[in-house]
Amino acid sequence: MATESNTGREKGLGITAKKETDFSEWYTQVLTSSGFIDYSDVSGAIVLRPDSYFAWESVQRAVDALFKRDGIQNACFPSLIPEKLLNKEEEHIAGFSAEVAWVTEAGSSKLEERLAVRPTSETIMYPSYAKWIRSWRDLPMRLNQWNNVVRWEFKHAVPLLRTREFLWNEGHSVFATQQEADAERDAILGIYVRVLKDYMALPCVPGRKTDSEKFAGAVASYSLEHLLPSGKVIQGPAWHSDGQNFSKAFDITFLNKAGAREYAYQNTYAISTRELGVMVATHSDNKGLVMPPFVSRIQVAIVPIYGSADRDSISSYAKSVEDSIKRLRVHTDLDDAYSPGWKFNQYELMGVPIRLEIGRREAEGHSVTVVRRDTGTKAKMSLEGLEGALTETLVSINDNLYARALSFMDANTRFVESMDSLAKSLESGGFVQAPWCGDAACEAVVKEKTGAKSTNMPFSAQGRAGGKKCVVCGKDARHVVNFARSY
Amino acid sequence: MATESNTGREKGLGITAKKETDFSEWYTQVLTSSGFIDYSDVSGAIVLRPDSYFAWESVQRAVDALFKRDGIQNACFPSLIPEKLLNKEEEHIAGFSAEVAWVTEAGSSKLEERLAVRPTSETIMYPSYAKWIRSWRDLPMRLNQWNNVVRWEFKHAVPLLRTREFLWNEGHSVFATQQEADAERDAILGIYVRVLKDYMALPCVPGRKTDSEKFAGAVASYSLEHLLPSGKVIQGPAWHSDGQNFSKAFDITFLNKAGAREYAYQNTYAISTRELGVMVATHSDNKGLVMPPFVSRIQVAIVPIYGSADRDSISSYAKSVEDSIKRLRVHTDLDDAYSPGWKFNQYELMGVPIRLEIGRREAEGHSVTVVRRDTGTKAKMSLEGLEGALTETLVSINDNLYARALSFMDANTRFVESMDSLAKSLESGGFVQAPWCGDAACEAVVKEKTGAKSTNMPFSAQGRAGGKKCVVCGKDARHVVNFARSY
Repeated sequence: MATESNTGREKGLGITAKKETDFSEWYTQVLTSSGFIDYSDVSGAIVLRPDSYFAWESVQRAVDALFKRDGIQNACFPSLIPEKLLNKEEEHIAGFSAEVAWVTEAGSSKLEERLAVRPTSETIMYPSYAKWIRSWRDLPMRLNQWNNVVRWEFKHAVPLLRTREFLWNEGHSVFATQQEADAERDAILGIYVRVLKDYMALPCVPGRKTDSEKFAGAVASYSLEHLLPSGKVIQGPAWHSDGQNFSKAFDITFLNKAGAREYAYQNTYAISTRELGVMVATHSDNKGLVMPPFVSRIQVAIVPIYGSADRDSISSYAKSVEDSIKRLRVHTDLDDAYSPGWKFNQYELMGVPIRLEIGRREAEGHSVTVVRRDTGTKAKMSLEGLEGALTETLVSINDNLYARALSFMDANTRFVESMDSLAKSLESGGFVQAPWCGDAACEAVVKEKTGAKSTNMPFSAQGRAGGKKCVVCGKDARHVVNFARSY
Repeated sequence: MATESNTGREKGLGITAKKETDFSEWYTQVLTSSGFIDYSDVSGAIVLRPDSYFAWESVQRAVDALFKRDGIQNACFPSLIPEKLLNKEEEHIAGFSAEVAWVTEAGSSKLEERLAVRPTSETIMYPSYAKWIRSWRDLPMRLNQWNNVVRWEFKHAVPLLRTREFLWNEGHSVFATQQEADAERDAILGIYVRVLKDYMALPCVPGRKTDSEKFAGAVASYSLEHLLPSGKVIQGPAWHSDGQNFSKAFDITFLNKAGAREYAYQNTYAISTRELGVMVATHSDNKGLVMPPFVSRIQVAIVPIYGSADRDSISSYAKSVEDSIKRLRVHTDLDDAYSPGWKFNQYELMGVPIRLEIGRREAEGHSVTVVRRDTGTKAKMSLEGLEGALTETLVSINDNLYARALSFMDANTRFVESMDSLAKSLESGGFVQAPWCGDAACEAVVKEKTGAKSTNMPFSAQGRAGGKKCVVCGKDARHVVNFARSY
């Protein structure tokens, strides 16, 4: 598939900050200089330019296909929520009230009731659920929306990682029993884990949130947590068990098989454009973006190298190379206004996974020089079987990016057994696993003494709680918690 | 591909109004009883339930693939627009000010500047364009968004056809010359016409809007107009030439090849969820929806017919039929709580294009009975080659729906040459083509005397203007206008 250029000729002049020493500045430089995103005239909201939107579309389509295969259907509800609905579930509105954007006027009229720009859609969807669901035959009902939400936070905005508007999926399921509802958890988290790995080359830590950190209105929250190169942690996709909290507030009942009326059991789940920020922060380097191949708008950039004498023959060879790898997303750069070296830099800044250099030697030898963005390594490849070989290279780049990120995460995950070690270990960043009794008061002590929050209780670490003592109170540990400084 | 049921067991009890005698009531009954859409707690906004959202997704993917092939890229801009930006282009804001929903508060704070919930995105996109575009090398820039917009109209809402919120694409292109900009028109309108025909089985009338009816801020608007069975006309997808109107208001300039700074030339274009309403109104009947096959979530419903003795053998034959046509979207209904007759009605209400009836005779004969939703005709088909045969039937259903709609449109398009005939002809509904001198005053006279608006000047009818006189003033006609009563 040939891909339009938009190579960002109009973009910035490269990156001056270093990832290792000035992560925050490097992060925003890499995002904007590469043309991946841009700031907007709305404070705290950003523009997803074609490369970032393409990456989001790729993630969305992959997740959506797996959702559909699992029996989930898409729908679309209004984006403005009447205030009385938003207020129906107490914990929920308490969690959101500080950051709701309110529509109060339309045209030249003042509205009788304020409308919330959706921060999430429980309260506009569930009155419809109450109407649609009559008996166990209507269940499960598993609907999903792909949309935008607005959360007007007053904290410092960080592009993609914390913005006042973002894109996401919001899944809202209803089941006839708590058991069936619970069974959805592994299916959904499994879908997210798979797409994070196969498309964004991102590892994560799945686990249950502590009660103090769960979603507003949920009974239990489960999250996938990411470690950024800065040593700070950020929450990724999540799945929430709402039990009967919302069904009671919104009167979502059904006739069960025994003929009795019962409140339904609900879950919600989401993945958002925040993941694009995690992806860029994780893989990119001081030369610019490093795009995982299966979310990259351009997978292969062909840069012909010629003088005025052999421009025609080499361009035409470059075009024939492009023709032979059409199933990949490829762009051939024949712009004479820029030198090959300038183009190399440009595609490195944009993070294009593979660059093909094509000069006289390549044309004569029916070959190409293949340069990988992730490692910088160069290799000669024959034109014969090139499409297959490059596809393997793309897979290998994704694998390598994932392995690198996983090894960084593993190297920055430490297990401690005392408050002192916990405090000390937190200073070097990363996940610090500590045994915990389960008491919210102890969790609060950690936060107060160290400034670190509990991220989640990793599934993989719970086996280590046995026989251990809570790092705060010394009582028997019931869980292992991942503490970290977080965004 | 197997498809989850959501067959709408919880839905309404069928349709009592008749399409022929009570179109408006029939239209809302068919939309809601079938479970296609539902009303919401937000006045004037609706819920797209899975079947309608699936149809929109199908249209969106088809259009999006053709856009990408034409070199258009997707992006995403903020949904809230600062008031000062919205006010930058005078005609534009004049066209929208009466229906803008305003965010004035966030959390417990009053905002310093009001934010418009986007009614369309020119004014939030073009400041970025001004920043990104520097020279002719950056052009053309052709970006598109798939999103939702809010227009808080105070007129009577009609589900899908006129709602306060809808989904659409909004394409925003920038070119270096007016000529290149103009060349985009046929490409975009061609994409819309093709998807309307191949996916929604909808004909339309392409043509130029008169100046009084063009988009707020445009130099010229081109539209695809639809005739509904009620005899009233509604505007479909449109493409607008903005010339330099917005580039001057937003300072979008570029260095041209001669090295001079010049204002850029812009276009915009859109297709919206309104088309779903046109589709339902056009094809459906007094039994319920009639879904064009390539936007239908379920394409084939299998209804087994069995007694208690042969339930197992017939169900298992039905499942083997399903397995043999997996490339279609098929649902096998094994719910014992409902009779086959009830299920027939239900799938007719939902508009499923093909129903397969499978009983003892079919099982024994390795065959199926195929019932078409559009014609009600029954045919026996062999299991061998069934997938291909059903695919042909789906194409034939789409063709038939299109041909039927086209023939209705042709039968209700009349050419007149006097004001009297125009007024009289308008009473029977449909498109009435009349020669026009081009003077807005004459157009206004028609509106005043007949209540009918000019819809557009059909490309196909312009040849008839030659030698004719304006039906209002009697001067030489320069155009042929389609007048109609419209939504």
